[in-house]
Amino acid sequence: MPDPYQPRPEHRFTFGLWTVGNPGRDPFGHEVRPPLDPVESVRRLAELGAYGVNFHDDDLVPPGSSAGERDGIVKRFRRALDDTGMKVPMATTNLFSRPVFKEGAFTANDPDVRRFAVRKTLDAIDLGAELGASVYVMWGGREGVEADAAKDVRLALDRYKEAVDLCCEHIRDRGYDLRIALEPKPNEPRGDLFLPTVGHALAFISELEWPDMVGLNPEFAHETMSGLNVAHAVAQALWHDKLFHIDLNGQRIAKFDQDFRFGAEGIRDAFYLVRLLEDAGWDGMRHFDAHAYRTEDPEGVWDFARGCMRTYLILAEKARRMRDDTEIQEALVAAQADRLAEPTGPLAVVRSAELDEAALAAQGYGHERLDQLVTELLLGVR
Amino acid sequence: MPDPYQPRPEHRFTFGLWTVGNPGRDPFGHEVRPPLDPVESVRRLAELGAYGVNFHDDDLVPPGSSAGERDGIVKRFRRALDDTGMKVPMATTNLFSRPVFKEGAFTANDPDVRRFAVRKTLDAIDLGAELGASVYVMWGGREGVEADAAKDVRLALDRYKEAVDLCCEHIRDRGYDLRIALEPKPNEPRGDLFLPTVGHALAFISELEWPDMVGLNPEFAHETMSGLNVAHAVAQALWHDKLFHIDLNGQRIAKFDQDFRFGAEGIRDAFYLVRLLEDAGWDGMRHFDAHAYRTEDPEGVWDFARGCMRTYLILAEKARRMRDDTEIQEALVAAQADRLAEPTGPLAVVRSAELDEAALAAQGYGHERLDQLVTELLLGVR
Amino acid sequence: MPDPYQPRPEHRFTFGLWTVGNPGRDPFGHEVRPPLDPVESVRRLAELGAYGVNFHDDDLVPPGSSAGERDGIVKRFRRALDDTGMKVPMATTNLFSRPVFKEGAFTANDPDVRRFAVRKTLDAIDLGAELGASVYVMWGGREGVEADAAKDVRLALDRYKEAVDLCCEHIRDRGYDLRIALEPKPNEPRGDLFLPTVGHALAFISELEWPDMVGLNPEFAHETMSGLNVAHAVAQALWHDKLFHIDLNGQRIAKFDQDFRFGAEGIRDAFYLVRLLEDAGWDGMRHFDAHAYRTEDPEGVWDFARGCMRTYLILAEKARRMRDDTEIQEALVAAQADRLAEPTGPLAVVRSAELDEAALAAQGYGHERLDQLVTELLLGVR
Amino acid sequence: MPDPYQPRPEHRFTFGLWTVGNPGRDPFGHEVRPPLDPVESVRRLAELGAYGVNFHDDDLVPPGSSAGERDGIVKRFRRALDDTGMKVPMATTNLFSRPVFKEGAFTANDPDVRRFAVRKTLDAIDLGAELGASVYVMWGGREGVEADAAKDVRLALDRYKEAVDLCCEHIRDRGYDLRIALEPKPNEPRGDLFLPTVGHALAFISELEWPDMVGLNPEFAHETMSGLNVAHAVAQALWHDKLFHIDLNGQRIAKFDQDFRFGAEGIRDAFYLVRLLEDAGWDGMRHFDAHAYRTEDPEGVWDFARGCMRTYLILAEKARRMRDDTEIQEALVAAQADRLAEPTGPLAVVRSAELDEAALAAQGYGHERLDQLVTELLLGVR
Repeated sequence: MPDPYQPRPEHRFTFGLWTVGNPGRDPFGHEVRPPLDPVESVRRLAELGAYGVNFHDDDLVPPGSSAGERDGIVKRFRRALDDTGMKVPMATTNLFSRPVFKEGAFTANDPDVRRFAVRKTLDAIDLGAELGASVYVMWGGREGVEADAAKDVRLALDRYKEAVDLCCEHIRDRGYDLRIALEPKPNEPRGDLFLPTVGHALAFISELEWPDMVGLNPEFAHETMSGLNVAHAVAQALWHDKLFHIDLNGQRIAKFDQDFRFGAEGIRDAFYLVRLLEDAGWDGMRHFDAHAYRTEDPEGVWDFARGCMRTYLILAEKARRMRDDTEIQEALVAAQADRLAEPTGPLAVVRSAELDEAALAAQGYGHERLDQLVTELLLGVR
Repeated sequence: MPDPYQPRPEHRFTFGLWTVGNPGRDPFGHEVRPPLDPVESVRRLAELGAYGVNFHDDDLVPPGSSAGERDGIVKRFRRALDDTGMKVPMATTNLFSRPVFKEGAFTANDPDVRRFAVRKTLDAIDLGAELGASVYVMWGGREGVEADAAKDVRLALDRYKEAVDLCCEHIRDRGYDLRIALEPKPNEPRGDLFLPTVGHALAFISELEWPDMVGLNPEFAHETMSGLNVAHAVAQALWHDKLFHIDLNGQRIAKFDQDFRFGAEGIRDAFYLVRLLEDAGWDGMRHFDAHAYRTEDPEGVWDFARGCMRTYLILAEKARRMRDDTEIQEALVAAQADRLAEPTGPLAVVRSAELDEAALAAQGYGHERLDQLVTELLLGVR
Repeated sequence: MPDPYQPRPEHRFTFGLWTVGNPGRDPFGHEVRPPLDPVESVRRLAELGAYGVNFHDDDLVPPGSSAGERDGIVKRFRRALDDTGMKVPMATTNLFSRPVFKEGAFTANDPDVRRFAVRKTLDAIDLGAELGASVYVMWGGREGVEADAAKDVRLALDRYKEAVDLCCEHIRDRGYDLRIALEPKPNEPRGDLFLPTVGHALAFISELEWPDMVGLNPEFAHETMSGLNVAHAVAQALWHDKLFHIDLNGQRIAKFDQDFRFGAEGIRDAFYLVRLLEDAGWDGMRHFDAHAYRTEDPEGVWDFARGCMRTYLILAEKARRMRDDTEIQEALVAAQADRLAEPTGPLAVVRSAELDEAALAAQGYGHERLDQLVTELLLGVR
Repeated sequence: MPDPYQPRPEHRFTFGLWTVGNPGRDPFGHEVRPPLDPVESVRRLAELGAYGVNFHDDDLVPPGSSAGERDGIVKRFRRALDDTGMKVPMATTNLFSRPVFKEGAFTANDPDVRRFAVRKTLDAIDLGAELGASVYVMWGGREGVEADAAKDVRLALDRYKEAVDLCCEHIRDRGYDLRIALEPKPNEPRGDLFLPTVGHALAFISELEWPDMVGLNPEFAHETMSGLNVAHAVAQALWHDKLFHIDLNGQRIAKFDQDFRFGAEGIRDAFYLVRLLEDAGWDGMRHFDAHAYRTEDPEGVWDFARGCMRTYLILAEKARRMRDDTEIQEALVAAQADRLAEPTGPLAVVRSAELDEAALAAQGYGHERLDQLVTELLLGVR
């Protein structure tokens, strides 16, 4: 019997080069694993059943490479993609590692730093487009502040908007078929980051020059850090028709950015998120932005990658079974879940309807039973 | 010499009837203070220098009052307002205390509960308009869920939108000069609430039928609970021109909703918030949504109210002095804070500007000195 | 085939009268369920397979009852216990609801309040002993502060110690076979509580007059609120031989005290906790200190109670299967988990052992594989 | 007029070499400042008025140095100390950076890793003793786990105890006048760390072979990360007579480990902590374990160091003024703060005292007024 949780390209799983290639450095410790050749990452991920790989500009082309070196790297990388059938659905820019960005990138106080950041992004957009990416992710890892006096947030949002508008203009100039996905995060590495949640980024988009070109790349860890419900955030992004990409991983609330294997923390939240994506028929990439524990040697990295995908498939299967589970469906009816689709209005009905407060108040909704049934589905005992 | 921190009506300080009238009940304890007559609240707050009072419908008119009783209550209350010169700038509805709302109000699964909730809101809008309110606050204290399976978030947002649209329609029908302000909160009393942050609510507004009628009522405690930077959130609301009202209080990150006296926790965040409001010349109400500690007898309540206003005025004075402090202004120049107003573009400049990464990276921004100067301003030693 | 997850008395499940009897009041809402007769609670819990019930003094005997009323209540309650075979393994005192405790109980600044609190505890100890309790829980729900200046923490700890010593003296005077279990909590209802974690309470015990009489009652929710690992905390309590009782429930990190159904949040943490208790052969009570969601009618309460016990049994079964799972056991060997029992010393060995840092550093520990296997066990797919 | 906040050696301020020498690397960014010669750190700190410097073994002597190199480094360093009058009151070991410690140090599963860790500690103890340190800090940065199955916490505590006992044995063997201070931390870089709070570490000490040799080194940031009240934690450490050292810095609750300048976050908590240390007459080192923002060039580092010390002195002055402030002292009497020193017992008094619950419950404690007065003291307006 075939393994029902064997990843295959049609599941649309992707990994960043920086995820499987993460050498295990952390704020208190040195690297524990050697560098990983991007071509090797492509080969191993293809073997495991992934659909594609994503990268930051610097992940693929080391900063300071000459034009010739760049082209050689791209050619070799493309060959690996062709050999394996792997795709590059998304690309992004590293606007956070180099010292030049220490005070910000798109929202740096110094206009020349901003120009440097936007130009680096334009180059990375070209690289992504060249390799076939259709989504461009923007994570503003240095767009924020510790010393609040140093930056006027309203001006910072003006500059953030300007930078995104400039990138959209470049995409339109070049005729790329590329959409931008903003990735919110509340803090780390800065004390506070701008556009800290899915909500803030959604609101920001409405002020852009070409709002249709820009959507969201929510990340499990980033919403969860603040104790927000990640499935609710992604549902609101879908409601606004702005879910362009997603970053899946594991995270504990109110902790440093952990980027653990998908499902390693918050398994119930992971389940509701997978269920939402599957039930919504969302056709985007299931991207894992995570890395192996620092306890792992090079082989452990592939256990990590395998685990991310398997857990997604296990949870997707549970989401399917939830739809077919008679008792759960009965409990949903008891909770009146189906009636949420009925309109409340029009106003005349609201004003005139016969309403018996005491009877309405006496209703039970059976959430304890419903939630227990889902728990048992999750635990595999129904 | 007159007290420089004596509140006066022109400072536009307001309190809710439910704040000074809070009897000190909490999840583990009974009331410690007797009920407070709304008329007495008006008189005491006027004496202390407040500008006005706000209320939930049920704070003023007890549920179950007859039309005649209601009118008598309103008449007596209005007389107290007239006698003291106090205003009612804001009104709101209690959609959370009664058992009928246990599964939600605007987003309840049962359409009749939703109708009950919207109708209660329409009545409360009428009451608010009658007493001169120009802002109507909506806090969806029961719009959320613990058992995630019980509610489809996207449908819930459809219903939330519908309810706000119905209220706007009612306001337009009646010709009221009234704007709606949504109040976000991440959790408590529900496990997770919809529209959990300023960002989510701002995004939601863009989908409404009459988006110009609706803005935000951010609350210090509610943003802070999630560890978000409340001054950043309010700045973004201002950036979208959507700051219609504000709730000031004190709160520690990652704790239950504390609603402490303004400045009692997070004094530095309170300072940056006051500075933002004052520097922006924002002309809305400085509303305190807080209550006295449970250790207080009835007199302690007025110490609480006095303290909220004094702290605001002390911080506003510090914001003024920050503008005049030569060393701080020099440090802001060293941080290049003024240059954030310079555009980054146009695109041609970005593409062609001469940029020296090493020189840009070598710059220091002097945030340690700047932040220390602000700290010393806050501590009153400069 | 019998249900493998049917609770039976030998599983030693207990509930508080205040848990199933919780009427659904919260900081923002009124009661949604009618009061529940303690005798009815005993009958229903017995039917569901529980071992016993626990109570605060006031849960059973309403404050202000005469001696005759008290005896009548106790007699009727005891008859229900006898009829059903249910036990009262634990009792406790309500030192938090009444206004007299608003500034503290054992650590109130006013000595007469402290005397009132200790005397109430002595009476409750007598009541507990009369009904056969062998553990006495102390939760200091009001032992804390919001205004830090108001209380010297070192003096507060002196008074806390004195109060516990007085209770021990009383137990010894009366010859009761009763041990005291301290229940830590970080905050809520006070801004900060004394003895905020399992660690602080363990340390405190070492300063008591009769430290052997006093241990811990850790609570899942209380440790989890602070983001601490509850299974680690309980393991440390076991390591000190101080796990006298335990409170099981569900809680999300960095949120208000939720007291959800066991397993409703933090299912992985719940699993590791159950595994610890089962693997340690701990013979104490599995007490649920939780309550039904406010969405529930009276029947939902029993779904809640059933769910707590079923989830425990499901997780205990998984803990057993983990011991028998060959692949997991192999992964534990790869992680060298068994070698943690080997001593490091003696000092001479440490000083002289041949150690190859590079070889030690190159080892992989296979935690990704191990954790994925446990995840799949938890999800029921292995 | 001399600057009242000018640091002088008698204030006993110390810094780690790793603090002023921090090059600004973080999880997402490269170094922004060049390495700093330890001798230069000594000179600059001496000029600023510090008392001494502390170090990890590797901060002073690069790993891999020969015995001759080591001696040369120590000699040159000692000369700088002699030249400036600076002391080395504390030393510690780096047990977290090198890959060999990726699975733990004192609690690694592999006994040889533990031996390597203990031996490195013994060598570092020798180095610290040679340079005159009287406190040895132990921070177990890798003593923890992400994959909970991988480690039995009770065995880990056995090994932790064994390692500390071995170090004590070494100190006794060598006749050093050196005490050990354990530094708790809840998480980061590991998912969960052992001995996560001051409480857990205090409890742990009671199980050691030589408990009198071991105390605590609480850190502002580490307690605050979990949302615990750091002044309460330090007060409990003092209560147990176990405050051997302290790490001062700034931190926001529920965030990554920020190690900001003292007072940069949590200024009220910082004040209560300083007040506790000063009022207790505690004579230990005021050590700053913090680093400059990444926005700083090399000069900004000294602004950072200067700011830490100035803020401490400003807060200490406020603590003194609090003792002399008549209104605050009256408010403390109203709060009955002085009566907390009165005993509650003996038992006979508790049983027989005349107690009027209603009168006790009606008392107000004036915490709003008291807390506002302290707030205004903090803000420098009284």
